[in-house]
Amino acid sequence: MNDPDDLVAFLGKAWQEMRRGVADARSPARHPTFATVSPSGVPEARTVALRRANEPDGEVEVHTDAATQKTEALRQWPRAALNIWIPGSHLQIRLTTTVKILTGAFVEREWDRVPVASRVSYGTTPDPGTPIQGAFAYEKPPVRERFAVLRCAIDHIDLVYLGQKHQRAAYVREDGWQGTWLAP
Amino acid sequence: MNDPDDLVAFLGKAWQEMRRGVADARSPARHPTFATVSPSGVPEARTVALRRANEPDGEVEVHTDAATQKTEALRQWPRAALNIWIPGSHLQIRLTTTVKILTGAFVEREWDRVPVASRVSYGTTPDPGTPIQGAFAYEKPPVRERFAVLRCAIDHIDLVYLGQKHQRAAYVREDGWQGTWLAP
Repeated sequence: MNDPDDLVAFLGKAWQEMRRGVADARSPARHPTFATVSPSGVPEARTVALRRANEPDGEVEVHTDAATQKTEALRQWPRAALNIWIPGSHLQIRLTTTVKILTGAFVEREWDRVPVASRVSYGTTPDPGTPIQGAFAYEKPPVRERFAVLRCAIDHIDLVYLGQKHQRAAYVREDGWQGTWLAP
Repeated sequence: MNDPDDLVAFLGKAWQEMRRGVADARSPARHPTFATVSPSGVPEARTVALRRANEPDGEVEVHTDAATQKTEALRQWPRAALNIWIPGSHLQIRLTTTVKILTGAFVEREWDRVPVASRVSYGTTPDPGTPIQGAFAYEKPPVRERFAVLRCAIDHIDLVYLGQKHQRAAYVREDGWQGTWLAP
């Protein structure tokens, strides 16, 4: 397993799992935790749905309402960490990313592909996170202008395989994702 | 569902799930994502195992090797976010916490309860995250001094129920966890 090729295979396995997450809503890679830092420096984490995993560009994408706390945090500080745990494969995938918030004309194609019934996820009134008088004192109209794609350019990937003997490796964009074994 | 009692029941459900996570290694609440902020301000997220959930004190605990990156991040800035997604219950539990790193005599009882086979999780040489020459160029001796309990005092709980109609509520320690409905 010390053959450098295994570093390539290990990374390949992670991308395979992420592509599966995009394609299959029941795959564990469908629902990464997405962590950001609030303007006051507090870590924030929530579950998102993985919508795109592009290995050649080293990018992943999630969709969000532009009025959410995470979008606000990213406007101030555009770094996000994604964590995926795949129980069946004993594999943890951690991505450190720099995020662009795309809206409007830049995401027309993506919006057109959002099923009509799902468009209500973008446009909650009042804004998500606003205190309301009762559990259902909100409306969910579909609002095209509120639809945002978070394009996450991966800077760093950390993989851990919790097998009989643990394996851990790090990959960085700047050296073309060659990879390095790490102590787990 | 606008009865204030439902805010109490909603929070009760979250604690029930967290207690189940502590008791049952196969429960989804067993494996929260634990997010911290690195000394350079970058969000970091990884999967941990939930070891204690104490509702009266508003605390949860996880165990870690004191030489990990997350412990180092917490020494600099003791805030952590925990995110739990429970697919079967359509429930997301988000905790914002302030963390104490307990080691040595303070965690003697906890160490004594760690199964002998699991103690090798505390003491990897070289330190976790250090580049190594091959996948298995590390040792895992059990090192009692490296065992740390991260005692996370919860400041804020955010719950989202993704049912037919979504429900979201926030609870803060400072008002005794009364709870407020939020727009989801």
